[in-house]
Amino acid sequence: MTQDSVQTAAAESARIVVSVDAMGGDRGPAAVVAGLVASARDNPDADFLLHGDVAVLTPLVARQAGLSGRVTLRHAAQVVAMTDKPSQVMRHGQATSMWATIDAVKQGEASVAVSCGNTGALMAVSLIRLRRLPGINRPAIACLWPSRNPGGFNVMLDVGADIKADAEDLLQYASMGASYARIGLGLARPRVGLLNVGTEEHKGRAEMKLAHDRIAAAAEAGAFDFVGFVEGGDIPGSRVDVIVTDGFTGNIALKTGEGTAKLISDFLREAFAATFLSKIAALLALTSLKRLQVRIDPRRVNGGVFLGLNGTVVKSHGASDATGVAAAIGLACQLARSGFRERLAARVASTMRAGQDAGAEGSPDNGSASGLGVGSGQ
Amino acid sequence: MTQDSVQTAAAESARIVVSVDAMGGDRGPAAVVAGLVASARDNPDADFLLHGDVAVLTPLVARQAGLSGRVTLRHAAQVVAMTDKPSQVMRHGQATSMWATIDAVKQGEASVAVSCGNTGALMAVSLIRLRRLPGINRPAIACLWPSRNPGGFNVMLDVGADIKADAEDLLQYASMGASYARIGLGLARPRVGLLNVGTEEHKGRAEMKLAHDRIAAAAEAGAFDFVGFVEGGDIPGSRVDVIVTDGFTGNIALKTGEGTAKLISDFLREAFAATFLSKIAALLALTSLKRLQVRIDPRRVNGGVFLGLNGTVVKSHGASDATGVAAAIGLACQLARSGFRERLAARVASTMRAGQDAGAEGSPDNGSASGLGVGSGQ
Repeated sequence: MTQDSVQTAAAESARIVVSVDAMGGDRGPAAVVAGLVASARDNPDADFLLHGDVAVLTPLVARQAGLSGRVTLRHAAQVVAMTDKPSQVMRHGQATSMWATIDAVKQGEASVAVSCGNTGALMAVSLIRLRRLPGINRPAIACLWPSRNPGGFNVMLDVGADIKADAEDLLQYASMGASYARIGLGLARPRVGLLNVGTEEHKGRAEMKLAHDRIAAAAEAGAFDFVGFVEGGDIPGSRVDVIVTDGFTGNIALKTGEGTAKLISDFLREAFAATFLSKIAALLALTSLKRLQVRIDPRRVNGGVFLGLNGTVVKSHGASDATGVAAAIGLACQLARSGFRERLAARVASTMRAGQDAGAEGSPDNGSASGLGVGSGQ
Repeated sequence: MTQDSVQTAAAESARIVVSVDAMGGDRGPAAVVAGLVASARDNPDADFLLHGDVAVLTPLVARQAGLSGRVTLRHAAQVVAMTDKPSQVMRHGQATSMWATIDAVKQGEASVAVSCGNTGALMAVSLIRLRRLPGINRPAIACLWPSRNPGGFNVMLDVGADIKADAEDLLQYASMGASYARIGLGLARPRVGLLNVGTEEHKGRAEMKLAHDRIAAAAEAGAFDFVGFVEGGDIPGSRVDVIVTDGFTGNIALKTGEGTAKLISDFLREAFAATFLSKIAALLALTSLKRLQVRIDPRRVNGGVFLGLNGTVVKSHGASDATGVAAAIGLACQLARSGFRERLAARVASTMRAGQDAGAEGSPDNGSASGLGVGSGQ
């Protein structure tokens, strides 16, 4: 073995592999490949397994010089449609690109999977192939939410993995969400809040009070601060870093926030197109307005992360364009690079050993893993 | 009786009386009186009963020429605090300004009540004094939400009267929400949607499917179109006019939307203050930006309406300033003027007579009641 090949081997061992589902998004494989091009440029340490119809994918990939030598195509004959029932995909979906994408993580060929397909089906396939982390009853989907906090984002979970959650589940969400914020947002001791209809302790459903007390008791072991109940207005606020809720409420809050942001953006565009003066103003303010748009662009934080499985899965929005896909793959790369999967598993295990403050995943300054820097324009 | 006094009596009989709680808001009675001044100017056919500490209120009212002869002060020695438990206020709150405000409607002295106090207490006092409409199990709070629809607003309920709702309650919300949209937004046949985590019928909680089928079966009798499940993104959208959900989910969606809108407004302000050019741009675009601000200003649609009681109660936001209070009182005046209470009660009764399409409240073009015109800059 020559010196050169030893160096190549060492460099290759530091590379990360991301498994990407090319099919199943609303905009088809062309949008996924376009996003992949941007991700490959931004993440030179990453290689990709791309799953789908090779007849479609081969020409799309071949015309991109930046993907040369970085992408391995894997043929999958079937596609999961947005209207497919999760239960059917679980039973009969073995030949789909989604299944193959998850399976590559299961087989250890890739350390993280990305798909913009049907959320319910993706969670079902992830559950059946990757299985739950020991001690986790219901996995959750965590999203990043633009906020007033210095890092620019808060974490909210569950935003749609399951339609309900009991007190035990909400406690596990608190622990997993704190881990994600610690690694993803670089916060040593994230502040966790439980979403409710009022901040006073007597308000809300009875199960919320139970969850409140369980999370409060586990905060020390989970290495987070529990601020108690928070309200919808705190999701984009600065009182907390992590908002814990059931998947029904979280999903509706997420889509309400996205819809409201979109409405205002459209109104803003109309306002600037309204008069001659306002059109001039739009030109003058172009830089500032672009900065604003970047700050609230939901595509920038595209990528719900499935937490609580033996493997990391990033769910990109079904309607993602190239920018959205690139953000989701970028998030996947950073999670892979940080050893997120192992650190989360260690934290869940340590939180389960009640009262013990094992700190297995370390502080964000430890080791080779750095914060994801999602707030700094990834 | 002279001709003059007959005319005066006739004019007075057409006047409306609004009962206003001056206390209990976060900004105190001065903000309420300031809002009252604007409302009195905009609603010359309205007189007001103002409840609270007369020692505080007398000088506040006396210095406003516009309120002369329009306001009757009613002394109430106590104030409901934001931290008071509803159950305690129900038992021991008889001397509070909130109680007296509701009682004036109960006694027939006023046709509608307005308060910016503690929501839970206001609902509790309203329930105990006004009682539920026959056939209504859980009253609801309906709010107006800025939307892409031509009228500029959608109706959502329940946004916080109760923390749960079963299929029967959700059906009643659909009927009451449709009535509110018919009268409030001038829509002959409102489109009603049931808030869920997906629009496919197999998604969501089991009780949602039951509610879906109940509402679908009652649409004809309720004189509305049922579009089925809608998602969070549809709340500010144009697919529906009325969004039906339980009070837990609705309250969180409302506050999430408000918080998101506030975040973006603040970011926008920062963007325009960022550079010299952007400051110039802000000046040039002032008119357009002001129009935008009006379109998304939550104070403009301040006023949740309690539906399902023997009397109309408008809940103003606790943190309302003069603009917010004026919007809530303005809404109260318009509801009083339209005979909303009687028309809603007739519709609920007719919807209960299953299969019958009684149309008791008439179309918005009928009779003397006009649409509230909330979308046209009230």
